[in-house]
Amino acid sequence: MHRFTVGRDPVLDLNLYAHDCIASAAHVRMLHAVDLLSKDSAQGLLNALLLQHQRALDHQVTIFPEQEDGHTALEAALIEACGDDGKRVHVARSRNDQVLVALRLYLRSSTTLISQDLAQLISVLLQFAEQYRDAIMPGYTHMRAAMPSSFDMWAGAFAEGLLEELDALEGLFQRFDRCPLGAAAGFGVPITIDRKLTASLLGFSRVQHAPIDCMNSRGRHEQALLDHACSIAGILEKLLWDLALYSTDEYGFVSLPDAFTTGSSIMPQKRNPDVIELARAKCRELRGLSHWHRELISGLPSSYHRDLQLAKAPLMDGVQTLRDLLAMLTYLIPHLHINAEHAKAACTDELYATQAAYQLVKSGTPFRDAYRQIAGQIGAGSFDASEARASAMHDGKAAQQLASECAQLQAELATAQKRTQARIDADNERLQQIWNLL
Amino acid sequence: MHRFTVGRDPVLDLNLYAHDCIASAAHVRMLHAVDLLSKDSAQGLLNALLLQHQRALDHQVTIFPEQEDGHTALEAALIEACGDDGKRVHVARSRNDQVLVALRLYLRSSTTLISQDLAQLISVLLQFAEQYRDAIMPGYTHMRAAMPSSFDMWAGAFAEGLLEELDALEGLFQRFDRCPLGAAAGFGVPITIDRKLTASLLGFSRVQHAPIDCMNSRGRHEQALLDHACSIAGILEKLLWDLALYSTDEYGFVSLPDAFTTGSSIMPQKRNPDVIELARAKCRELRGLSHWHRELISGLPSSYHRDLQLAKAPLMDGVQTLRDLLAMLTYLIPHLHINAEHAKAACTDELYATQAAYQLVKSGTPFRDAYRQIAGQIGAGSFDASEARASAMHDGKAAQQLASECAQLQAELATAQKRTQARIDADNERLQQIWNLL
Amino acid sequence: MHRFTVGRDPVLDLNLYAHDCIASAAHVRMLHAVDLLSKDSAQGLLNALLLQHQRALDHQVTIFPEQEDGHTALEAALIEACGDDGKRVHVARSRNDQVLVALRLYLRSSTTLISQDLAQLISVLLQFAEQYRDAIMPGYTHMRAAMPSSFDMWAGAFAEGLLEELDALEGLFQRFDRCPLGAAAGFGVPITIDRKLTASLLGFSRVQHAPIDCMNSRGRHEQALLDHACSIAGILEKLLWDLALYSTDEYGFVSLPDAFTTGSSIMPQKRNPDVIELARAKCRELRGLSHWHRELISGLPSSYHRDLQLAKAPLMDGVQTLRDLLAMLTYLIPHLHINAEHAKAACTDELYATQAAYQLVKSGTPFRDAYRQIAGQIGAGSFDASEARASAMHDGKAAQQLASECAQLQAELATAQKRTQARIDADNERLQQIWNLL
Amino acid sequence: MHRFTVGRDPVLDLNLYAHDCIASAAHVRMLHAVDLLSKDSAQGLLNALLLQHQRALDHQVTIFPEQEDGHTALEAALIEACGDDGKRVHVARSRNDQVLVALRLYLRSSTTLISQDLAQLISVLLQFAEQYRDAIMPGYTHMRAAMPSSFDMWAGAFAEGLLEELDALEGLFQRFDRCPLGAAAGFGVPITIDRKLTASLLGFSRVQHAPIDCMNSRGRHEQALLDHACSIAGILEKLLWDLALYSTDEYGFVSLPDAFTTGSSIMPQKRNPDVIELARAKCRELRGLSHWHRELISGLPSSYHRDLQLAKAPLMDGVQTLRDLLAMLTYLIPHLHINAEHAKAACTDELYATQAAYQLVKSGTPFRDAYRQIAGQIGAGSFDASEARASAMHDGKAAQQLASECAQLQAELATAQKRTQARIDADNERLQQIWNLL
Repeated sequence: MHRFTVGRDPVLDLNLYAHDCIASAAHVRMLHAVDLLSKDSAQGLLNALLLQHQRALDHQVTIFPEQEDGHTALEAALIEACGDDGKRVHVARSRNDQVLVALRLYLRSSTTLISQDLAQLISVLLQFAEQYRDAIMPGYTHMRAAMPSSFDMWAGAFAEGLLEELDALEGLFQRFDRCPLGAAAGFGVPITIDRKLTASLLGFSRVQHAPIDCMNSRGRHEQALLDHACSIAGILEKLLWDLALYSTDEYGFVSLPDAFTTGSSIMPQKRNPDVIELARAKCRELRGLSHWHRELISGLPSSYHRDLQLAKAPLMDGVQTLRDLLAMLTYLIPHLHINAEHAKAACTDELYATQAAYQLVKSGTPFRDAYRQIAGQIGAGSFDASEARASAMHDGKAAQQLASECAQLQAELATAQKRTQARIDADNERLQQIWNLL
Repeated sequence: MHRFTVGRDPVLDLNLYAHDCIASAAHVRMLHAVDLLSKDSAQGLLNALLLQHQRALDHQVTIFPEQEDGHTALEAALIEACGDDGKRVHVARSRNDQVLVALRLYLRSSTTLISQDLAQLISVLLQFAEQYRDAIMPGYTHMRAAMPSSFDMWAGAFAEGLLEELDALEGLFQRFDRCPLGAAAGFGVPITIDRKLTASLLGFSRVQHAPIDCMNSRGRHEQALLDHACSIAGILEKLLWDLALYSTDEYGFVSLPDAFTTGSSIMPQKRNPDVIELARAKCRELRGLSHWHRELISGLPSSYHRDLQLAKAPLMDGVQTLRDLLAMLTYLIPHLHINAEHAKAACTDELYATQAAYQLVKSGTPFRDAYRQIAGQIGAGSFDASEARASAMHDGKAAQQLASECAQLQAELATAQKRTQARIDADNERLQQIWNLL
Repeated sequence: MHRFTVGRDPVLDLNLYAHDCIASAAHVRMLHAVDLLSKDSAQGLLNALLLQHQRALDHQVTIFPEQEDGHTALEAALIEACGDDGKRVHVARSRNDQVLVALRLYLRSSTTLISQDLAQLISVLLQFAEQYRDAIMPGYTHMRAAMPSSFDMWAGAFAEGLLEELDALEGLFQRFDRCPLGAAAGFGVPITIDRKLTASLLGFSRVQHAPIDCMNSRGRHEQALLDHACSIAGILEKLLWDLALYSTDEYGFVSLPDAFTTGSSIMPQKRNPDVIELARAKCRELRGLSHWHRELISGLPSSYHRDLQLAKAPLMDGVQTLRDLLAMLTYLIPHLHINAEHAKAACTDELYATQAAYQLVKSGTPFRDAYRQIAGQIGAGSFDASEARASAMHDGKAAQQLASECAQLQAELATAQKRTQARIDADNERLQQIWNLL
Repeated sequence: MHRFTVGRDPVLDLNLYAHDCIASAAHVRMLHAVDLLSKDSAQGLLNALLLQHQRALDHQVTIFPEQEDGHTALEAALIEACGDDGKRVHVARSRNDQVLVALRLYLRSSTTLISQDLAQLISVLLQFAEQYRDAIMPGYTHMRAAMPSSFDMWAGAFAEGLLEELDALEGLFQRFDRCPLGAAAGFGVPITIDRKLTASLLGFSRVQHAPIDCMNSRGRHEQALLDHACSIAGILEKLLWDLALYSTDEYGFVSLPDAFTTGSSIMPQKRNPDVIELARAKCRELRGLSHWHRELISGLPSSYHRDLQLAKAPLMDGVQTLRDLLAMLTYLIPHLHINAEHAKAACTDELYATQAAYQLVKSGTPFRDAYRQIAGQIGAGSFDASEARASAMHDGKAAQQLASECAQLQAELATAQKRTQARIDADNERLQQIWNLL
């Protein structure tokens, strides 16, 4: 029964403990401000919370199964350190909004970390595009060679897509910029408190007023983060599938570094792209975790239900999985070896058919007629791509344009990184203040 | 075989036809601007497109199964109207980016419509909160009566949550503010075109540069809309579950209007809350449609694959389902009948236990001790709530605070509505210009 | 509002109308048997039901939106044909168990149809294996060439997997072999009826006793069918992915017939494997539909809720999607063109490394040591596969064994087909009897 | 990187280690039988495997992260114990089929355990039905009181539904009754082995012939188990939702024992049904885990890919979650306290309306007219239920019929339990033989 109700909380709550210390410190400062806690009591509690916070950062906290969760563990630590004052800290709040505010801080900090990880991956993709500016390869649609492409175009596309995701994370910060602390059990507290003060101390620009909405947002905010994680993973999945294909002998455009492959237990000749495959699977895993989370938070009336406790596992596993994926790819991309000659040789004449049709268009043939004309030549075996190929090769405009687009992406990335850094700096500064002497 | 490949396209593409006309008009203007189309040819095509656009708005377009999709139907109409010029319009674009840009415009306009629907629902919720400012009822956690709440608090909470969603839709507009037209088959076109011009004509503030990313974003953008739809539906689901419970005889807080209930085929006495149940099911349905969509867009290498064609169905069904839900609730809320006396009577003494504990806290008892003291009184049957109840009733602060919070939500709603209206006005103005004579 | 509550029922219920006629006929015979309906009334109703059944088989039934569903349409038709007797038919049953029993019959007949479709696909796969008994190709693990395989092994594997699924469908027939008719609204009827009689008339070997379980099984049985559909689709997905790869120029083992490919709107040289891609997407679509269904049936207390009405759409779409897939593949497989020489040439020396290691094992070397020895030779470029290759080629045992295994699969298939045919024959015979004169 | 590739394997594989020992013992006996291993070598390996098997049963095995998985750990233990012979054991098999066969045995034993758990829960439900044979309560449809029901009917319904599931598990045993050992890397082994012998030693009645299908069934079989788990959980979810409602003050039919409730951190008067809520959430969690699993096994070409490694986590978490749920409910049901008087009082006159209509039918009124007549009386306030109520109460037929149906369910349960026990006995006997001296 105990195992049934406690579940993975004692481990998962280690992710929340430091955030709970900070939120509790804000709560203590507020209780003092509205005269529900004396200065001495408040200062004693702040000192004890600072100590617990430091222990959390140093990975020295253990939550014992019999304590059930981190919030009970923290309350026990405060009672041990401050006696009766430890019993005073839970006035004007409930376990539920304690969890809510700690989770909100966790969501905010996780999103910041993911932003940093994303920026690093985008950066190595843009460097890769720069490095292989002139390396052409076939572009595929329907998994059939279609038109000339390049490693530059390929890597730049993932950079642009991920930059869209990096910008989209701003929407998450907006969502999370609402302080739930003070919602108590979901119907407010029958006592005067200052919710604006705690909100401001914790770096929120607004209070989430309706206590029932605070409870209703449990899971909603977490799901929004997981939805974004799946969107990011959707881009990475395409990149990984491309690599899985391009690194086969059949395609042969890319060689994986040895550290990313393993042998077979039965076949002496084999090298398998295990890391690519595991990473690809983790993209699907994120969808699975996101769905698991959605199941847990759905199908309930308003307000709090114990069902929601289980939702911490897929959230925290999801954040970790995404960060692992981003780190792994950031490490992999610069180590990819490109077989440029092989890729170039795969750009056969037929890939220049559209180019040839467009040359006819320029001399006045309607496109549909030009299309049929070239198709006829190909069918008859009389198609000569040399002119189309030459014009494509020599004008250099494409490479020039790609370079300019990459430069623009680079500038956008720099802007995003500054935005993230400013957020981190503000967080650090605020954190200093919360521990100030009263 | 034909049925296998065509599927529901001839019906679904009616949602895209008008957008395809607009995007094609922008493409024609651009082709003329870069000297790939003469002024006469371009003007002729614009006239034909305007006619088709008008027919689409008047629901006079039919796409025949043998045409397979709306883009072929439009090309056929242009060839019929303009002869050879109709064959010229497809230069410098591919069927894929034609689909992409039409879908992007569809996503943008759907999001605008959803914003309007949401704003209306929020508005009736705030009116409801205003109307039942003084009507108390029990607040529930774990589906057990917990503390005094009110219909005001209840409705205001959904308004605040939905306002968060309305604001979050801005993130979608940001995502969608990238023009894919010109990506062609996913590797650009080997001819000089002006992508900035088409982007600007269509109201996008930026070009989505990387053609491969344009292809990769097929499904990604649609999924982002469906994710938001599920988040909105998650809030509505709680509202509907509450109504399903509160309207039972066992709770008895709310009566549903007759138009929202139906009889039983076997039991003469029954009135069933069918509309509430169907609406609740549609919240789950949205999660199902979203998941169906995610399956379709996932698990593929980069660039275009025909698999993606199937993703239109869950997208368009999802948009319709969400809009139906919002409209139904906007119609229902003002027709709810509140049994205020019954709800008040359900606020028994025990709901004031926390209030009583806080009164002890005010006189110096640590909260944990006060909590135990009141719990003891309740266990012994000696708990007297009269003082706690009186202080809760008579200070009126809660109602005052709720009124002020609702006023703030009202102001935020007005801001959001202005933002939406500005977007609609800009769209209309741009649309005028696109049909201007060359 | 009407559109909101009626939904797609008037179209979807066409799939249930004939089943409803049959179940109603059984109900009428039972009502007569327990003296709740006179012989004349019963015979008149049977005649009218037979007529409606025939019209359903001839696709001449229309359900008007204002009738809301097929059951109301049928009751209206009976009242029109039989006057007051039409009003008597609904005694001792409820709309809900009318839906339940019609759905149960639909599930049973759909499973029979799927069994037939599956058997046909298995049959063409075994023929394909027979036809390409000697055609070797590389076997892949991790999408890397691993060991020698053959088209025979490849096709035979799908046949064996699908035979497992065909056998597993028996579990569904067991589940569905419970007659829910008589559960009424979920609490039985307060009148004496003969549930065993209706069960037997409808070909069920047992009554589903507990009326609440009858209601609870709404959705559970449908989901079981969809789960099996996904399992089948999981096998087909692998087959289709293999074909998508093997038919690329890069692999080049298989050529698709022209009817299965389409051109590009922009690239004159392209042939795209659209049918393969759409079929692959439909495998994912089935997972999406299954999930959509699961959302709709989940999260509810026991007994009937109107939410369940919506579950008909993903069920019926799912059955159709699976049957389309099976039919398409049954048509495709015999039309595949195998490039046997190309596939043979791809079986390079290294694929025989394990064979070579095993030859060392036979002369006493422990396997791990043999493995390292061969790996060393390959690394050093000194590996000579000729002996291993020769022994693999010339003993013919593998082909012989495969032939014998295919023969066994063929025998199992024949057994399964007889089982299905016996079921169909019994259904037809029973159907004759149900229309017999009283 | 190491953490990325190893994941949770060192912990999860503890669930497979004993099975791997058994399968390896069968492999060793077979290698000896086909003269690939001397008697002494084989006997030495068997002794070492028996020791490892015993250590696994005694929970004394540790798999070190640097060993990556349990199969490597076992091979290392064998080499340590038997020297060169330890290196011989891996001939004629691959890591993949070693995993496959261990998983197959795990699936078989998990299904047996689940069968036992299910049987116990069904048993307590039938006892509960027996205990409350005469206790009536309202039956609900659409969450509105509909007709008279009873605790007997209610519990019996869950028993019947779960018996259907227990029978359906037979389909799983059929699926799992295929021995994959010998598939090697998915293309068989180029050496003569006796697959029938290993199959028979391990208790499989047939060999899974096609090695590619062996690989393809990785995940397919696991998913089938998880699908059944979700179907079972779908029934439990309804039971738990009913309990969540019936145990509220508003319904008041059931009281939960104290051990199943917890207090609130803020509200002194509260008792929350946490265990019911967590159990309800675990029903949804199973759907989430099942979906996560499906994501991982889907979207791949045929044969083995490393992606599949990750699928062990949701499978094993799912099995544990289901078993926890079943155990918890088996413990809870006998401890439920029924408030029989309260439930009886909730059976108001209107619940007898259908009964009253049927009394009119018996005297010749067509049902639709009787229905309207009673509905009219109810509307006018003139409905008198006394006669209907009396006839329902006093004939006792319903209770008698329920008792007889429960007896039948009891008999079916006994049959199922015998079947399970026979399977366990056979497994134990076979296990004895596998360790016999050669």
